[in-house]
Amino acid sequence: MSKTIYIAGLGLIGASMALGIRRGHPDYRLLGYNRGEQSRKVALERHMVDEVTDDFARFAPLADVIILAVPIKQTMALIKELAQLKLKPNVLITDAGSTKQAIVATAEAHLDPQKVRFVGSHPMAGSHKSGAQAADVNLFENAYYILTPSRLTAPGTIEEMEDLLKGLHVRLTQMEPKEHDKVTGQVSHFPHLLASSLMLQAGDYRESHAMTQHLAAGGFRDMTRIAESEPGMWTSILLTNQAAMLERIEDFKQRLDQVATLLKASDEEAIWTFFDQGRSTRKEMEIHKRGGVDSFYDLYVNIPDEEDEILKIMELLRGTSLMNLRINEENREDIHGILQITFKTQADQLRSKEIIEAATDYAVFIDQ
Amino acid sequence: MSKTIYIAGLGLIGASMALGIRRGHPDYRLLGYNRGEQSRKVALERHMVDEVTDDFARFAPLADVIILAVPIKQTMALIKELAQLKLKPNVLITDAGSTKQAIVATAEAHLDPQKVRFVGSHPMAGSHKSGAQAADVNLFENAYYILTPSRLTAPGTIEEMEDLLKGLHVRLTQMEPKEHDKVTGQVSHFPHLLASSLMLQAGDYRESHAMTQHLAAGGFRDMTRIAESEPGMWTSILLTNQAAMLERIEDFKQRLDQVATLLKASDEEAIWTFFDQGRSTRKEMEIHKRGGVDSFYDLYVNIPDEEDEILKIMELLRGTSLMNLRINEENREDIHGILQITFKTQADQLRSKEIIEAATDYAVFIDQ
Repeated sequence: MSKTIYIAGLGLIGASMALGIRRGHPDYRLLGYNRGEQSRKVALERHMVDEVTDDFARFAPLADVIILAVPIKQTMALIKELAQLKLKPNVLITDAGSTKQAIVATAEAHLDPQKVRFVGSHPMAGSHKSGAQAADVNLFENAYYILTPSRLTAPGTIEEMEDLLKGLHVRLTQMEPKEHDKVTGQVSHFPHLLASSLMLQAGDYRESHAMTQHLAAGGFRDMTRIAESEPGMWTSILLTNQAAMLERIEDFKQRLDQVATLLKASDEEAIWTFFDQGRSTRKEMEIHKRGGVDSFYDLYVNIPDEEDEILKIMELLRGTSLMNLRINEENREDIHGILQITFKTQADQLRSKEIIEAATDYAVFIDQ
Repeated sequence: MSKTIYIAGLGLIGASMALGIRRGHPDYRLLGYNRGEQSRKVALERHMVDEVTDDFARFAPLADVIILAVPIKQTMALIKELAQLKLKPNVLITDAGSTKQAIVATAEAHLDPQKVRFVGSHPMAGSHKSGAQAADVNLFENAYYILTPSRLTAPGTIEEMEDLLKGLHVRLTQMEPKEHDKVTGQVSHFPHLLASSLMLQAGDYRESHAMTQHLAAGGFRDMTRIAESEPGMWTSILLTNQAAMLERIEDFKQRLDQVATLLKASDEEAIWTFFDQGRSTRKEMEIHKRGGVDSFYDLYVNIPDEEDEILKIMELLRGTSLMNLRINEENREDIHGILQITFKTQADQLRSKEIIEAATDYAVFIDQ
């Protein structure tokens, strides 16, 4: 049975979801809302959606599914607006925000479970690009897509989402909204807060210690990279995840106090253990495999460190979704092999492994 | 006038220094000490040094310059040993340790300024590789090389170091030992402590929040990368930089308290400013240009995002010291252009810019 899907927000996420839904359900009718004209135009021209509007209320009554793919604040505003509109009976509403508790709470406060269904969503993917012109049907390939069911999520809703999203090739997972915010708070929001704090600390230190400006190296660069993200989005994330942030801040301060105590005692063995535990914990976590925002696929090839060998490999891999090619020379002990090649899709990774193994004698590894 | 240079420690740093000194002074006699046999053998076979020993005391009396390129603890032990040996009058002793105050203090406590000269050194370069077999004459190319003069540094010593190191192509800079430790504490040691603390925090969080194991993404990965470094070296660094670490820990806790205060007040504007200042400070700092452990040279080329275009560029650059080639697709807003190419040397960077500009219509940038 064909359905009408209304995607509010034709940015990178909304437009990429449109492509993925279209791939899974070529018969569905896709409608799009966007304030800015450019992404509306691109989405229509490239047939990502069948019709577009800049008036959110216009298409809402036609939809079987409404996807709010806009910033957190606007998501909450549109939920309130939907509560005032006459929608199809039993319409399924979902979103794409980075925090879930505040959005789900807004939905529970304003939407009527007798008339509509709602399930919170967090598709964990992104790119430095933005807008419909950057849309990519493979953006969510193997990325986690978290659903946060609540009392607005009637039985059967999860299965309906699963079917709706089948063309996105995501890893669908369910979490409670609060638990979602705690976990993403630990692995994403709090690290962001740390990175910006470190950046400000170093910035202030320059005032009295001028060489701070010049001696920052690779470790500092890695640690502060995310401090350059767009401030608006992260302000909204922090403001809608206050409790988890405050709790993690307190916990972290205690950890710093513990390190200070070890330092004051010159407790060499305990400091060694502190660093060693950090090292072993990192090796255990899934960051070494797949998951999260950048779900890329790496291949490691042991080749002689010579330019022409690399060119040879690249010629073999012509036409694959190769994204990054790295000759390991940096001070990073977590990487083995000489040539690291990153692919967008697992299919290209596996195919390239076969191609290189068939054409050369080089050892090819997938895991580090 | 030819000199005899004694390098104690033929690891990556010591052996690379031997190559650099040899390049600047082909007439100098180079002697090497190393405990492990393998690096001794490699250094001798590849003529990095003229003679080797596993008995530190053996060559010390023959040297005009003694370079201690061993871990911090061993550096301090060898300084004490040198105080007991009969050395050439006015011999110049230097080191390569990552912290300077403790080493310089050991030198001042044990060495006799009437008999020897000492100047602390910190060559800020490294690699994930180790041992003499990884030695690279270009390892220090354009890297900062910090000298930390003290009362053991007689007039003329800095100029002598400058001449000795002319083949390394470093950026020679002077700092007070204490100031050196403060600044590297801010941009290197304290970030390390933060990364390991964050790693342990996330590790503990897994116990009660299982999805923590799986949802870590690019930001977390970047921020914790250095937590996988070898614990022994960082334990020594922290233990020889206690005062600066304790002071930075206290400062950082206050910063966390400030963020907590803003969060509790839901002060949107102030939180936005916090993130925005982090962003602008990072753009100002030299991490965006050169300096520090990984002194690499980037080129940005605006090309259509197609496989064959990349292959074309690589063919143009055949034979350069290309290290890394990245097609920008990540969620990193600090990078512009499509293709980022990293070179080992500035000469290759500049030459490649000319080559690409001559052969194509693509815009080529050096700075981000």
